Amino acid sequence: MHETLDSAIKSLATPKNFSVRLGIIGGGQLARMTVMAALPLGVEVIVLEKNPGSPAARLAPDSVIGDWSDPETMQRFAAQCDVVTLENEFVDAQALKVLEGAGHKVFPSADCIALTQDKLTQKQALQNAGLAVPKFRAVKTAEEVIAAANDFGWPLLLKTRRNGYDGKGNFTVRAESAVPAGWQALGGGVNELFVEAFWHFSKELAVIVTRGRDGATAVYPVVETVQRNHVCHVVKAPAQISPQIALQARNLAARAVETVGGVGSFGVEMFLSATGDLAINELAPRVHNSGHYTIEACDCSQFENHVRAVLGWPLGNPLMVAPTAVMQNLLGTERASGQPRGLENALRMTGARVHIYGKMFSGPGRKMGHITVLENSLEEGLVIAERAAQEIYFGTKL
Amino acid sequence: MHETLDSAIKSLATPKNFSVRLGIIGGGQLARMTVMAALPLGVEVIVLEKNPGSPAARLAPDSVIGDWSDPETMQRFAAQCDVVTLENEFVDAQALKVLEGAGHKVFPSADCIALTQDKLTQKQALQNAGLAVPKFRAVKTAEEVIAAANDFGWPLLLKTRRNGYDGKGNFTVRAESAVPAGWQALGGGVNELFVEAFWHFSKELAVIVTRGRDGATAVYPVVETVQRNHVCHVVKAPAQISPQIALQARNLAARAVETVGGVGSFGVEMFLSATGDLAINELAPRVHNSGHYTIEACDCSQFENHVRAVLGWPLGNPLMVAPTAVMQNLLGTERASGQPRGLENALRMTGARVHIYGKMFSGPGRKMGHITVLENSLEEGLVIAERAAQEIYFGTKL
Repeated sequence: MHETLDSAIKSLATPKNFSVRLGIIGGGQLARMTVMAALPLGVEVIVLEKNPGSPAARLAPDSVIGDWSDPETMQRFAAQCDVVTLENEFVDAQALKVLEGAGHKVFPSADCIALTQDKLTQKQALQNAGLAVPKFRAVKTAEEVIAAANDFGWPLLLKTRRNGYDGKGNFTVRAESAVPAGWQALGGGVNELFVEAFWHFSKELAVIVTRGRDGATAVYPVVETVQRNHVCHVVKAPAQISPQIALQARNLAARAVETVGGVGSFGVEMFLSATGDLAINELAPRVHNSGHYTIEACDCSQFENHVRAVLGWPLGNPLMVAPTAVMQNLLGTERASGQPRGLENALRMTGARVHIYGKMFSGPGRKMGHITVLENSLEEGLVIAERAAQEIYFGTKL
Repeated sequence: MHETLDSAIKSLATPKNFSVRLGIIGGGQLARMTVMAALPLGVEVIVLEKNPGSPAARLAPDSVIGDWSDPETMQRFAAQCDVVTLENEFVDAQALKVLEGAGHKVFPSADCIALTQDKLTQKQALQNAGLAVPKFRAVKTAEEVIAAANDFGWPLLLKTRRNGYDGKGNFTVRAESAVPAGWQALGGGVNELFVEAFWHFSKELAVIVTRGRDGATAVYPVVETVQRNHVCHVVKAPAQISPQIALQARNLAARAVETVGGVGSFGVEMFLSATGDLAINELAPRVHNSGHYTIEACDCSQFENHVRAVLGWPLGNPLMVAPTAVMQNLLGTERASGQPRGLENALRMTGARVHIYGKMFSGPGRKMGHITVLENSLEEGLVIAERAAQEIYFGTKL
């Protein structure tokens, strides 16, 4: 009996045969932090990424090195996974549709990715659901940009419908004379563009929402995001706003993710006006930089909840376990090694939790890591995070 | 200029060339949790372990599969590491001495491992330093056990000097008639044994101490450990003891680690009597089961502090960030797959943080994972941890 059991077990003895296998398309820092959340749940992760030394693939020994734009690679990858998810919204939705058609489980779904990766259709969907968004309009010519400005006023935001992130794919047009420059900068005529009314915000807010396959949601606290050069610089959790506005923001975020049929952790970025009005800036169908603080600050992080959600498991508690958290990004300044310098000095700052992403190379503005600080007040946390971040650099010290 | 920089970088482009590389001898759950703490610090970890599918080696792609009792394997391994550390105290100290002699950095040192892996010399060192330990005596024959009982009384603990853990290598001799059975059970005459007076404790306590290469120490809170069948079952942090006793326990632990010249995170197990006396039970020269709660409950975990200590980096803050933490072990009951069942039900318990170790196989009493719960009171935490632990099983449900 014992012998039979043992041989039965031995026949299952490769890790491939007894784990739940989660596939992640993309191997950057978001995938890496997802892998680190998945491992303690006994989940096997397989990453699909072009570069062999990617931050996530190095923790996932069975990973597939390949291009997600190649259908055959995608099929080979999906065949090894119980569930496929993604760390970015740039994967071709049609390719995901093909995987679904072949019977693979993909979360968020191909339809959700199609809807959200096109920022115009995303905004239309949110608006159709009655959710507040800035005014917007598709534009086919530079003349239509000027026509829109007659309705929306200057400045005006010109945006690409697809593939924008961290300010890339956005152009602020301040006057009619700048329209040709903006049109050219974003590749108007080749790329599909739209315009958006400039929203005079007093704060930028963000909410992570995790939505399960059964529609259950975990809504994280509202945070304030501070951008620098269109890249997330600091996140303050929770945002210093009234409980009423916090509640509205959380509801808005949850409804937005429901509207697009999201499954998994989503980042919902919002504007708050001086008069207390909220509008959704955009929604990312994936774990989000504004939610990195949840690793230490929340009972269940955005990463663990993403894993739970896409696997169809119960969601964890999104509440904070500390009074406040501050997250500050560590950005590269030049092409250099991805290995940090000055780390020892940063570690002298009590309470600074350092996350280095393990990228091979640094580059100007590249996200290389982040620091999180839990403190009794945001003021204290901001000081510690800034001091620790100042110590760490990649390449030459500025 | 840019070209030159780029090609200079490319020549460094394998991960081997730009990371701090920490070698860990042993690839079990302790090494795995150390790897997970090392990665966000940008540290590359290389594991030496016999089995290719070990919990830690699967996260450390450059790991060495081999036997640490083979000198050539050890040399090959050490040559790839900047610093070598260990996840267990059973590695031959002489082999570590050889590595040190060849110029490799080994922490804790070979001398420290030699002193502590022999529980008799460990106790002698602690006693010589004036630290409270139960009475003990080396015994060469069964007759000497009986002679010791005349001084120490019955029951008496008979122990092997080396290779004991989790009750293995220990035998409680309750009367003279049981001496031959104990002597035989522990291989007396072949294995070197010693006896120890039975300490009537009211509580078992433990303290994690991390000591840096510069002698700086981080002393974690005192916890109460509850054993079941000589294996750690539950850890309650902090222990419900008076501040005076907590201070004494922390001092005792810190002095013990200093006495043996420890570098890294050490687990110090103690007895507390009903009258408030403390004595050191034993010291483990490595991260310790009683410190798993520090992953979520402390600003800097025992694992991260171990990495910092052995690399010569500043230590992190050992203080708790939550009022209480409960850790409960998940043990195997039979030879079966290492993949948990019932996980989804456990995840329904809000606040239960599940850690599955990713072992290939379960076995009776084998440590397969643990659960940590942060709560406002230990009572609440104990209920949640127990309920979640009850849901998870390996193999057949009991």
